[in-house]
Amino acid sequence: MSPVPFADRLIEASRRRGTVLCIGLDPFPDLIPTLFGPRTDPLAALTRFTQAAVEALADLPAAVKPQLGLFEAYGPDGYALCRYICETLTAHDTLVILDAKRGDIGTTAEGYARASLGRQPGFDADAVTVNAYMGLDTLRPFLNIARAHSKGVAVLVRTSNPGAVDFQDLKVDGRPLWTHVAQALCPLSTELLGASGWSGLMVVAGATYPEEARALRAMLPRNLFLVPGYGAQGAGAAAALAGFVPGPKGLEGGVVSSSRAILYPPAAQAAGNLADWRAAVRAAAQAAIADLRAAE
Amino acid sequence: MSPVPFADRLIEASRRRGTVLCIGLDPFPDLIPTLFGPRTDPLAALTRFTQAAVEALADLPAAVKPQLGLFEAYGPDGYALCRYICETLTAHDTLVILDAKRGDIGTTAEGYARASLGRQPGFDADAVTVNAYMGLDTLRPFLNIARAHSKGVAVLVRTSNPGAVDFQDLKVDGRPLWTHVAQALCPLSTELLGASGWSGLMVVAGATYPEEARALRAMLPRNLFLVPGYGAQGAGAAAALAGFVPGPKGLEGGVVSSSRAILYPPAAQAAGNLADWRAAVRAAAQAAIADLRAAE
Repeated sequence: MSPVPFADRLIEASRRRGTVLCIGLDPFPDLIPTLFGPRTDPLAALTRFTQAAVEALADLPAAVKPQLGLFEAYGPDGYALCRYICETLTAHDTLVILDAKRGDIGTTAEGYARASLGRQPGFDADAVTVNAYMGLDTLRPFLNIARAHSKGVAVLVRTSNPGAVDFQDLKVDGRPLWTHVAQALCPLSTELLGASGWSGLMVVAGATYPEEARALRAMLPRNLFLVPGYGAQGAGAAAALAGFVPGPKGLEGGVVSSSRAILYPPAAQAAGNLADWRAAVRAAAQAAIADLRAAE
Repeated sequence: MSPVPFADRLIEASRRRGTVLCIGLDPFPDLIPTLFGPRTDPLAALTRFTQAAVEALADLPAAVKPQLGLFEAYGPDGYALCRYICETLTAHDTLVILDAKRGDIGTTAEGYARASLGRQPGFDADAVTVNAYMGLDTLRPFLNIARAHSKGVAVLVRTSNPGAVDFQDLKVDGRPLWTHVAQALCPLSTELLGASGWSGLMVVAGATYPEEARALRAMLPRNLFLVPGYGAQGAGAAAALAGFVPGPKGLEGGVVSSSRAILYPPAAQAAGNLADWRAAVRAAAQAAIADLRAAE
């Protein structure tokens, strides 16, 4: 267990590696190259692919975000593999944001918090994504365990999918529901505050809505952002960075996540051997890092 | 795979067993009697306790609802155990509503839908609870897999925890957000409609707010309810049944879930052997069934 708050560890990693990029480790079954094994043995292909992705990419981004649902599709073995991948990332000194989108009441939320952020038999991730629809009391176990173990909690506020408008954008007192969720998080931010001045109570705010990211930054000046939707989901680097602010080594204030553009670029999909595949995904990650830096 | 829609299977089970009771299989680590093993080996105690609970209780309720988060707290082995428990319930001809509260976009939601409702390596549960905050597109993979496999989907609408007021009760156009979530589900209900006239697109509506359950029934006349919060969470049988309607064998229209009052009654906690424990939990389940029937 690190005694350094998650927020400070993420800011430090971002400065050290010179990027706010977070690589989304999304093992889409239909996109895993046959280089990693035949479609007839999907768990073996998943295992080899995700291990290779970690070995190829772990040193580059500020953090890696494994998408737990895509591992769970492979059953208990996929779930166990995801925990192993988290351990491997930690061994590479790379921060892990487990994308689990959990949320439940009381002791069940405590179960999910222990599973995601706790040590063995937990995933021991550095942060976890959570859904707050059920209410602030459902965040409490996550906040308590995060504070005790110097971990982070990333709350879904305004997501980047088309359906985000269905409920998140409904107007309450003349402004969107998601702003009320954000406002409710504000008083909790100090619980996970680091010496950097940033809070490890992250907010998930989609890159597809830059005006909203700016509004969110004004409401939550200390909360780190987890910005999905950069790259394949359509948003450019400037939009993804809309909620970021100047720091000593460039823009800071969170991480910007990209998955498909890095894990499945055409050159990687066409690669005939592991060395070519590795070079292609590293080049794609470095291109994303350069693209984000150019937009600052 | 059953060709009979989940809604019809739940109504049939409820009529056959003469109850709308759903037993929540919530293995709270601090409440598992030491009869099932020492606290120093929690996974062994969890395994013996949950297997004993299934053997003791599976024939009584209309359905059983395993609380996945409390299994995940034990890591990948707990996750695998929950799947095994689901298989065991199915072998007892008891319907399984997996309480997972999943929710994510696109292919990730598809991963969770396959994990929960799909056959091996999935849990093959009869229904799964989901969180719709991210939008209706996040329900699509669950609905598709549910329709293809004659399964159900239970959407969180108005939960029974104190924090439910934080966001679910915020007023949109003069009425609570949860009513907008309910309204949005209405057109989707026909996708999982059974010959009974009921839809397997269930709504989770807490027993602590009976007026709201009645309002919800008026909005969604065909959707089965999953009512948590009966028993230990404080709501009585009459409140829990507020959204139910007369059927050929008594009130119907969903299930009412109870966990603590059935799994951990004082007599079971004090039991010195398995036979006494078994008699105590069965008596508690039968008392809940009688309490619900008396309130009709």
